[in-house]
Amino acid sequence: MNQNYLELQGSYLFSEIAKRRTKFVQENPNADIISLGIGDVTRGLPAAVVQAMHAAVDEMAQPGTFRGYGPEQGYDFLVQAIIENDYKSRGVDIQLNEVFLSDGSKCDVGNIQEIFSQDAVIAVQDPVYPVYVDTNVMAGRSGKFNRETNRYDNIEYLECNADNNFKPALPKRKVDIIYLCYPNNPTGMTLSKEELKVWVDYAKANKCIILFDSAYEAFIQEADVPRSIYEIEGAKEVAIEFRSFSKTAGFTGMRCAYTVVPRELKGYDKDGNELLVNDLWNRRHTTKFNGVSYVTQRGAAAIYTPEGKEQVKSIIDYYMTNASIIREGLKSIGLQVYGGVNAPYIWLQTPNGVDSWSFFDRLLSEANIVGTPGVGFGQSGQGYLRLTAFGSRENTERAVERIQKLKL
Amino acid sequence: MNQNYLELQGSYLFSEIAKRRTKFVQENPNADIISLGIGDVTRGLPAAVVQAMHAAVDEMAQPGTFRGYGPEQGYDFLVQAIIENDYKSRGVDIQLNEVFLSDGSKCDVGNIQEIFSQDAVIAVQDPVYPVYVDTNVMAGRSGKFNRETNRYDNIEYLECNADNNFKPALPKRKVDIIYLCYPNNPTGMTLSKEELKVWVDYAKANKCIILFDSAYEAFIQEADVPRSIYEIEGAKEVAIEFRSFSKTAGFTGMRCAYTVVPRELKGYDKDGNELLVNDLWNRRHTTKFNGVSYVTQRGAAAIYTPEGKEQVKSIIDYYMTNASIIREGLKSIGLQVYGGVNAPYIWLQTPNGVDSWSFFDRLLSEANIVGTPGVGFGQSGQGYLRLTAFGSRENTERAVERIQKLKL
Repeated sequence: MNQNYLELQGSYLFSEIAKRRTKFVQENPNADIISLGIGDVTRGLPAAVVQAMHAAVDEMAQPGTFRGYGPEQGYDFLVQAIIENDYKSRGVDIQLNEVFLSDGSKCDVGNIQEIFSQDAVIAVQDPVYPVYVDTNVMAGRSGKFNRETNRYDNIEYLECNADNNFKPALPKRKVDIIYLCYPNNPTGMTLSKEELKVWVDYAKANKCIILFDSAYEAFIQEADVPRSIYEIEGAKEVAIEFRSFSKTAGFTGMRCAYTVVPRELKGYDKDGNELLVNDLWNRRHTTKFNGVSYVTQRGAAAIYTPEGKEQVKSIIDYYMTNASIIREGLKSIGLQVYGGVNAPYIWLQTPNGVDSWSFFDRLLSEANIVGTPGVGFGQSGQGYLRLTAFGSRENTERAVERIQKLKL
Repeated sequence: MNQNYLELQGSYLFSEIAKRRTKFVQENPNADIISLGIGDVTRGLPAAVVQAMHAAVDEMAQPGTFRGYGPEQGYDFLVQAIIENDYKSRGVDIQLNEVFLSDGSKCDVGNIQEIFSQDAVIAVQDPVYPVYVDTNVMAGRSGKFNRETNRYDNIEYLECNADNNFKPALPKRKVDIIYLCYPNNPTGMTLSKEELKVWVDYAKANKCIILFDSAYEAFIQEADVPRSIYEIEGAKEVAIEFRSFSKTAGFTGMRCAYTVVPRELKGYDKDGNELLVNDLWNRRHTTKFNGVSYVTQRGAAAIYTPEGKEQVKSIIDYYMTNASIIREGLKSIGLQVYGGVNAPYIWLQTPNGVDSWSFFDRLLSEANIVGTPGVGFGQSGQGYLRLTAFGSRENTERAVERIQKLKL
């Protein structure tokens, strides 16, 4: 068996949360739990999406309109809509063969490391979405886990904390692959164009590839925050971008995302010869993946219609109002909070420096609220807790009231 | 970049077929092409599936019934139906935590190798579904490609040819992982229970794991042909089974499959300590995958209702009648054909020993029929061509008539 799996630490963060929650519910069957934990949406799908999916299901019922295997990279009708609406409208020129539809950004950010060398040195932000780290552990790039530092020996951690306003410094040693996530999960913080340009320039100068996870792009409200890394000059030569319909359009249960791999992006073989990263990813994608459900793709395309756009905006506004309720509600009782302005995540500093899991347990037992312990995202998340804006308005308001009543 | 990718040979088989077809159509725009090439279904989805999917889409429209992230391993309603109908009904006892829903068997058989050691020696049938080989090449297990033998140095090839009636001999050297596909793609041939037992016993005696691809199980007509490897005593200790809704229920465009990893199945770390394969696969699956579309899962569950079962049977019967038309039609002009009895594939020996791609080109240019060149599945496929029974009745009949008119 793959020995690298033995280096994985504990179980996946959300499994541990679910376990503690289940235990609490078993012991307190009448508790009225409000989850602001896992970043999962709760609103229904936009009406335009529902309509498009019904139509697609009907197409699948008849031999004349039935669709079997589609292109692994996605149907042109959807890829074209993505290019027009997500890129061309922002002045970014992306070609059809640079977009790869998939069944989720979790899969894409997990699978992308396969095309890199086993020796590639990776850098991640800390705190970080655990999938970036775990998939590299499985591939043998992490080195040993160090219990004292709570980190892997061969991974470069880019600390994001209140001192640097959650904007990490450049790597201290030569790295090959840099995972950046903006708007950030879990901190909810963003970079300006100027700040992101520093990373693009660094990657160009140091032959790094940036893996830019932009799953929360739809929540950006401020004008100076880049929606795509390709808004930065030269980024197509150094960056792969991941986007998802999950949070944008409520597709967490539908499964649709995409990854952009520009043809300008070069990698190197062991002799230093240039390779087109796009070619390698295309080979990986066509060999190990068989396309996204046709019904799902039709649903995704509907968010780019005028009605779809309006409905998506209204859902995003709903969640961002929740974010503001949490943010302002917690600030009003003197808590230190970050994020929640351009992202559906609020990054709460635990009161009195208590550790993340203790505060998680206290919120669960005293307020019956499930959050996500910051330390689950890495050592720099210790002393923080992530709350999400994806609940219903009513639950969000009740949750804030309950926290306000705690003696913190 | 991952240097192993440079060992991959040519482009993926079906891409090459598509390229030649496109070229022919450009040069002969009026040609009336019939494709019996890619193994893709053409009938509409069963009515019970369509109905269930409409209902699920409606559920997704409202916050009260909306479903976000589901369990990565699949919803219990579907896993339970699989266990009851596909296993319990055949006397096989499978538990909920042994079944892993996914978006396709191509993904599962491609991803499964990740949990094995880099040093694991793999054996594949020859001819073989290219994904088994290519995914191991990408992982660095194949060794160099040898142009003289048309094979990779470190892969053990189990020859399947007319001499052994497409039933391979046991490996000549110690191997760790054995890929078996029955009913076989591409030959359409099967093993009896006694014949499959030889492999299970061999795997037990030699600490091998069998990866049993059973994507075409629904097409089995003969009583003695096992539908699951777990019908063989002891198989749960040595085998992982892959099943798919793609061919069974026309889901190639919907994306749903499952993999069974019994808790009895043990692997070994480098020191010889036992590991539960189920644990490793569960970790891989929950880390890199986020579940199958809820709408698709509801559709899949509907094939286990009484109406669904009847509708699926009628579609399978339709395709198997096509298989019989091809098989008998080609035999009647003296061609040597295999398969097509318990599988939707007919494995045609090319006349006069002509090579596979030449016969492919001749069928395309003279009869305007697209088949799949046997050599695309491996060196032992040279001199064969695969035809599929997935076309419409009319096209199947016309294709056979056209072949009968050729001077072969």
